[in-house]
Amino acid sequence: MAGLIAPVARLIEEFSKLPGVGTKTAQRLTYHVLRASTDDARALAAALVAIKEEVAYCSICCNITEAGVDPCDICADPRRDASRICVVEEPLDVLAIERTGEFRGRYHVLHGAISPIDGIGPERLRVRELIARVEGGSGEVQEVILATNPNLEGEATAMYLADLLGPHVAAVTRIARGLPVGGDLEYADDVTLIRSLQGRRLVER
Amino acid sequence: MAGLIAPVARLIEEFSKLPGVGTKTAQRLTYHVLRASTDDARALAAALVAIKEEVAYCSICCNITEAGVDPCDICADPRRDASRICVVEEPLDVLAIERTGEFRGRYHVLHGAISPIDGIGPERLRVRELIARVEGGSGEVQEVILATNPNLEGEATAMYLADLLGPHVAAVTRIARGLPVGGDLEYADDVTLIRSLQGRRLVER
Repeated sequence: MAGLIAPVARLIEEFSKLPGVGTKTAQRLTYHVLRASTDDARALAAALVAIKEEVAYCSICCNITEAGVDPCDICADPRRDASRICVVEEPLDVLAIERTGEFRGRYHVLHGAISPIDGIGPERLRVRELIARVEGGSGEVQEVILATNPNLEGEATAMYLADLLGPHVAAVTRIARGLPVGGDLEYADDVTLIRSLQGRRLVER
Repeated sequence: MAGLIAPVARLIEEFSKLPGVGTKTAQRLTYHVLRASTDDARALAAALVAIKEEVAYCSICCNITEAGVDPCDICADPRRDASRICVVEEPLDVLAIERTGEFRGRYHVLHGAISPIDGIGPERLRVRELIARVEGGSGEVQEVILATNPNLEGEATAMYLADLLGPHVAAVTRIARGLPVGGDLEYADDVTLIRSLQGRRLVER
């Protein structure tokens, strides 16, 4: 930008490369850094460098792990049920499921979802590694739970994986879609309501 | 956060310190950096360090300037009218006014506005430097244009400065408040409409 001194223009440009950060936000962040202490700026810079140096990927589940820790803590834990693999799109999804304490199996992180519009096909995801786990496990894997996001890309990915994995594993399941707990039927969108009806279950009594 | 590996937790924490960045956004930014190239992460880190090392403040107008360039380009430019000082809150405001090409005087950057609610009094702003310029200029400064933001803090700052500078300078002016060009009277808020009526001018013909 004209009139901007070089180091300021440079930081604005770098911030603008982050997702969801436009020029105005990048300017605001840059002037915040200018006003903040040098220690704060250095701490952010150091964390940025560290994350690239200290993060590795688990050779089994493809989730992120600290460099030098492979397999990751979950894959290395003998108390985790190796017969169930929960397939998710991102490392944050693992965190979300772990937070519930409901799942004691293992994970597989795809690092994305199939999205033809963005040019992302299955070969860009960690699908090969998943197939290898299921096929190579000598029948150990009994169930693959497809926990990709309930949106267009996530559904497409789930359908693709269900076709691919079907012949190799006893059960391929998909997480339920329906009304969120605490939600309101009146305000639910049509697709969610349809899914919620289709997924109805007998009330146990 | 539980379950997060250290370098990831650390970058999320550092991103969260930025203004307008909550935990969810910080997580999104962090996973973006994880997926981005090491070069991109390093470039942002380097820009963060550089901005603290390569940016200084002009000893005259208090605007940012490249380290070693003091006074800044505008203050050093003999073609700029030294009899008019435009007072703004932030360096970005200088850019915005420069972009118009309408103002050929000099600037003074306060680095904030008076805001009792945030504990920011005039002593936290570059007010002393402004007084010194106006008083020390041997009558050189003819007009001080108060171009602080047209909000509560900016108006308070303008009123404070008008009182303070009045005795020392021929004219203290305030930028006009009214309907933005391209705006719509029907949708204007009441205060803007009142200001717009109060600021009416004879039509020249």
